[in-house]
Amino acid sequence: MRLLIVNPNISQSVTDLIEAEARRTASAQTQITMATASAGVAYIETRFEALLGGHAVACIAGEQAGTYDALIVAAFGDPGLAALKEVLDVPVVGMTEAALMSACLLGQRFSIVAISARITAWYRETVAANGLLGRLASIRHLDRPLRDAGSVQEDHGARLVELCEAAVREDGADVIILAGAPLAGLARTVAGQLPVPVVDGVSSAVRHAETLVALGPRKASQGSFAAPPIKPYANLPAGIEALLRRGA
Amino acid sequence: MRLLIVNPNISQSVTDLIEAEARRTASAQTQITMATASAGVAYIETRFEALLGGHAVACIAGEQAGTYDALIVAAFGDPGLAALKEVLDVPVVGMTEAALMSACLLGQRFSIVAISARITAWYRETVAANGLLGRLASIRHLDRPLRDAGSVQEDHGARLVELCEAAVREDGADVIILAGAPLAGLARTVAGQLPVPVVDGVSSAVRHAETLVALGPRKASQGSFAAPPIKPYANLPAGIEALLRRGA
Amino acid sequence: MRLLIVNPNISQSVTDLIEAEARRTASAQTQITMATASAGVAYIETRFEALLGGHAVACIAGEQAGTYDALIVAAFGDPGLAALKEVLDVPVVGMTEAALMSACLLGQRFSIVAISARITAWYRETVAANGLLGRLASIRHLDRPLRDAGSVQEDHGARLVELCEAAVREDGADVIILAGAPLAGLARTVAGQLPVPVVDGVSSAVRHAETLVALGPRKASQGSFAAPPIKPYANLPAGIEALLRRGA
Amino acid sequence: MRLLIVNPNISQSVTDLIEAEARRTASAQTQITMATASAGVAYIETRFEALLGGHAVACIAGEQAGTYDALIVAAFGDPGLAALKEVLDVPVVGMTEAALMSACLLGQRFSIVAISARITAWYRETVAANGLLGRLASIRHLDRPLRDAGSVQEDHGARLVELCEAAVREDGADVIILAGAPLAGLARTVAGQLPVPVVDGVSSAVRHAETLVALGPRKASQGSFAAPPIKPYANLPAGIEALLRRGA
Amino acid sequence: MRLLIVNPNISQSVTDLIEAEARRTASAQTQITMATASAGVAYIETRFEALLGGHAVACIAGEQAGTYDALIVAAFGDPGLAALKEVLDVPVVGMTEAALMSACLLGQRFSIVAISARITAWYRETVAANGLLGRLASIRHLDRPLRDAGSVQEDHGARLVELCEAAVREDGADVIILAGAPLAGLARTVAGQLPVPVVDGVSSAVRHAETLVALGPRKASQGSFAAPPIKPYANLPAGIEALLRRGA
Amino acid sequence: MRLLIVNPNISQSVTDLIEAEARRTASAQTQITMATASAGVAYIETRFEALLGGHAVACIAGEQAGTYDALIVAAFGDPGLAALKEVLDVPVVGMTEAALMSACLLGQRFSIVAISARITAWYRETVAANGLLGRLASIRHLDRPLRDAGSVQEDHGARLVELCEAAVREDGADVIILAGAPLAGLARTVAGQLPVPVVDGVSSAVRHAETLVALGPRKASQGSFAAPPIKPYANLPAGIEALLRRGA
Repeated sequence: MRLLIVNPNISQSVTDLIEAEARRTASAQTQITMATASAGVAYIETRFEALLGGHAVACIAGEQAGTYDALIVAAFGDPGLAALKEVLDVPVVGMTEAALMSACLLGQRFSIVAISARITAWYRETVAANGLLGRLASIRHLDRPLRDAGSVQEDHGARLVELCEAAVREDGADVIILAGAPLAGLARTVAGQLPVPVVDGVSSAVRHAETLVALGPRKASQGSFAAPPIKPYANLPAGIEALLRRGA
Repeated sequence: MRLLIVNPNISQSVTDLIEAEARRTASAQTQITMATASAGVAYIETRFEALLGGHAVACIAGEQAGTYDALIVAAFGDPGLAALKEVLDVPVVGMTEAALMSACLLGQRFSIVAISARITAWYRETVAANGLLGRLASIRHLDRPLRDAGSVQEDHGARLVELCEAAVREDGADVIILAGAPLAGLARTVAGQLPVPVVDGVSSAVRHAETLVALGPRKASQGSFAAPPIKPYANLPAGIEALLRRGA
Repeated sequence: MRLLIVNPNISQSVTDLIEAEARRTASAQTQITMATASAGVAYIETRFEALLGGHAVACIAGEQAGTYDALIVAAFGDPGLAALKEVLDVPVVGMTEAALMSACLLGQRFSIVAISARITAWYRETVAANGLLGRLASIRHLDRPLRDAGSVQEDHGARLVELCEAAVREDGADVIILAGAPLAGLARTVAGQLPVPVVDGVSSAVRHAETLVALGPRKASQGSFAAPPIKPYANLPAGIEALLRRGA
Repeated sequence: MRLLIVNPNISQSVTDLIEAEARRTASAQTQITMATASAGVAYIETRFEALLGGHAVACIAGEQAGTYDALIVAAFGDPGLAALKEVLDVPVVGMTEAALMSACLLGQRFSIVAISARITAWYRETVAANGLLGRLASIRHLDRPLRDAGSVQEDHGARLVELCEAAVREDGADVIILAGAPLAGLARTVAGQLPVPVVDGVSSAVRHAETLVALGPRKASQGSFAAPPIKPYANLPAGIEALLRRGA
Repeated sequence: MRLLIVNPNISQSVTDLIEAEARRTASAQTQITMATASAGVAYIETRFEALLGGHAVACIAGEQAGTYDALIVAAFGDPGLAALKEVLDVPVVGMTEAALMSACLLGQRFSIVAISARITAWYRETVAANGLLGRLASIRHLDRPLRDAGSVQEDHGARLVELCEAAVREDGADVIILAGAPLAGLARTVAGQLPVPVVDGVSSAVRHAETLVALGPRKASQGSFAAPPIKPYANLPAGIEALLRRGA
Repeated sequence: MRLLIVNPNISQSVTDLIEAEARRTASAQTQITMATASAGVAYIETRFEALLGGHAVACIAGEQAGTYDALIVAAFGDPGLAALKEVLDVPVVGMTEAALMSACLLGQRFSIVAISARITAWYRETVAANGLLGRLASIRHLDRPLRDAGSVQEDHGARLVELCEAAVREDGADVIILAGAPLAGLARTVAGQLPVPVVDGVSSAVRHAETLVALGPRKASQGSFAAPPIKPYANLPAGIEALLRRGA
């Protein structure tokens, strides 16, 4: 199985973190290809930045169409995810939805631990779009400026563990989601220090993508995830045009 | 007051419908400028098409930044709306949210009448994102292929009226929203035939935009609609880069 | 356009605050008439007081029927609002619903800042009746006794600003609603001190009432906002009898 | 125990139906006094009519204060109920809330069968205000004009049974609520014909009122059901003034 | 009326507390029989323990079938309650649902005060299953280890009162539910110290059971509370087999 | 990895269907052991039957504790699932939750197609307990008596396909869940005939169980899925006693 993992941020350091965790998790048969957004911002924290990230992922998804059996949108908030599910005929999995599904299998209520205050509104809206606000115990976040998206784990590891513990003790979390690609792999490191299961978005997405490929669901030809109706279009990047043509 | 109305679709015929209704509604002091997406599809019905539309609106918003006092995203589903509210320091109003707010002021529960089956899932998600599913009585839709987005009103006017009547009689609608830019202005024509108030997204958006400009709310400097944090970016269209620079 | 603004409280000092803000906001073409409840309490904070206020507004609305093109119920909690929408054939707008609609156009989640602990339950129920609990970040309130409903702004201005700041910082508010007629106009004064947009119920109601008149929606002849079915009645005040007769 | 049952409608024939069912249900120790609204309409179906009914009940509740140990608001929709709970220091029970509580004890989801289309919106809002929309399977209603509120059971009994059966078969109702004072007592008559338990608002209210008196809960001195804060008032009917004075 | 009250825990000391409060509350005509689970744990705090409790109650309910006119499941969380409503043709009432219904009749929002942190998740899920999360103000709990389930009231009475007061003052509770059979009867003792009504599950359940018997609802023959369809079964305890046979 | 799959029904024919589908799906490294409830009913359709099934699964889970790395509760409705997650220190997955998670990854809204009318209420409550009612488009069901739980697919295959198509066309389903162990494997057979992805509970559960084992989450030592607090117990079956002892 060929798995394309797209980082919607332009940060190669974050792509490296994602790749490392993905390779630790993937089955032997899974061939991983990484891609990093060529256009966009260093780290997506807001709706506007997510709009840019979604567009960038779509371009890559179209440019490389036909070369992968599943695609992962590797940023929390899942920029462009639902849109891509319409136009691709292979499974598409987002880091957030994957983490949410793992968390739901491991407990009833979960908390999300995030890397900045600003990012929390976007995460909350993502949980809402997944219809899972009723199981969200809390979102807690780092409150100090980040030196670099690639070094958050080293710089703030102890504080992140404290946030997790507080979510269990005070908010009623049965499970913790460490959210955001810069935290990829941290769950593995800190699992032993925490009193509840910890979920990592990257490893969840890799495993769930493998599952969907194995289950082999057919592409929708009706309903809201069928390919968009054929209609005139104009001035689109080659990758996006490729996606519209494939739908047709 | 200078009002920029952006059609996220590439259809000039739809832009013309929007403009006609906007001019019928706007106050004398409001100067309207129309813009049509240069990249995208003829008519947005799906999440993927909305992603394209949101990107196109952002480009135009940035290219023309500084030349308008308020901006209207003139497609139902409000592509890119929440994102633009972060980066612009003038009011931004979407056709859907404007219609929803008008409908809420006119009754308790509303139905949406739409131009295709495919578009209804996206509309439902937009109502959900506005937190108003609890007031949605139903979404009803035309079920025949459309000859042209610009001639829906002539081709299907009688059927649209029937759908409205059924929504009142069977679904408990107190108000009807005629949804989608191709129906711009129809509310005005059919109001006399219907037993409840009918809401038009374009005229609602124009009036609510005028209201926001008059009320003069300050731009958020904190919270989730402050400008995104300053950070590295790369390879963005000039319009979008302009928006990121303005935030900073 | 002739606009009747009814204060459901018996406090002339509050009517004066409302009038001042209404006149600052209204368009040149809008002729404002003020009315103050003749029966009722000094300031509505509870469901029982709201029942009295709703009755008083209905009496005035009926007594002056035919002399106005729109009516504003100028107390937070909107006493009698939905009832009046049934019997009047002109737009009726409540201070709360107007503020909620403005807040929804300006951000995703809002907090309400109120003048007493007691009033918060009623406000919460009003937000719930508007179907918008999902967007309510918090309700914060003054916790000291009020000298006079007419002087709250002077007496407690600094504390009110602190409450707003806390709502943004701790509760995730994108927008603040300063609630209650005694705070009419305060948003204008403190806007510069706050990091997010601030909404005033009076100015919102005035503008939204102007919008509804401009959009010219028809009166419902079916659905739950049609006039009540004709039936025997007895011993009603002249104003209320006038409303029942008009419906028939 | 002295129980005051107030019909918020002015129809003596409906009061008689209520009284008959109440006497069939009440314990031997319960002394029932009936009262009929002196001001209002023949039968409450809308929000405006409920506003009148709530005011009328409050007047009676105050005029007779001190002569009863519990009060029942005997119209579906519970006009004035929450308001009265603030000002009375004895238990107050509404027909709707009583029926809802009985239905919840007898099954998971319930349907309401009502006497007119118009009344259904108000019932739905009452269920929502009780926080129980999630357990509402459906509201079904008679669709023919009513000769008289007092003879609905005779005139439409068979059709009402059909509506109940359809609610069970098609809507998933575990329990049926026969709603509205004109149907008082019908549950007793038709119970044998229906495949699920049937709830009557009057008998439920009588029993729940007896229960609350027996449990002897104290009157709230804090929270949103404490008596309203003392403040100036003016021009109120004697009954209502009595209620405000008692709170103080 | 013959009332069987089943304690799903194996603690006789808790059964005694329940019985004492039940006898204080019951009408003269009600004959109370107590039963204590023969298999299970000392005190149910978790979902697994509730599964055991539900099974034990079912065994007793079947063994004694025909000897009672109503049954009370006397543990908070109502283990086995919905299941028993299917197979018994007499009313079945749970302590939690009974307390919730009483609380709903006494105010709008309620808080639950519980005896351990661990038990709160199960209580929250029980409120959710009753569809009443929207009226739950908070769950507060003792945070010290319990010496004995039978002596919680003496050991922790003062702390429990503090928790109630905090729920009113900080969480907006209009009513307090003292939850869990070990607190049976405490509401009676502390009522005078609290500023809002306090609800006891046992006394509520006894009174509501009496009410249901008096109202005499028929057993469902259709819908989800009809007896389970007849089908093969094997190796069931005699009590449970009796319940399945009765359904048939 | 050693996977124990427990059929909470006593039907060996259903166990065989489950096993066949499980073996078609499982990875080469997964060793499957099947178990069938020794006590219970032929096919679980109701809450009472689920109580029996949950107890039976718990007995087996305890009797075989230590011999498996993950356990699947292989009946729709997931009897005993949340309870088992507390006491087992290996992953436990239910057929319903597994199907729901797969469906959520494949689309936004799903419909469930079930084998009887009676079973639908229990399924609906299971979806609600998973917090996913907001994504449930509909539950449709066979309406004819079943000859045998083991032959439903052959007897009713065509009708099941019709129900799926109707769910897509009329209810807005993006994904279909074929629910109930008697339909295990049917998704594989009919996938080609349906216009949207179809989800099978057994194959989803097998894959998700493999995923959880691969991700290696730690057992909760705090929160609501930690082992129940140690306390006296009595008269429990050996399997259940084993589970309580392991927790301690």
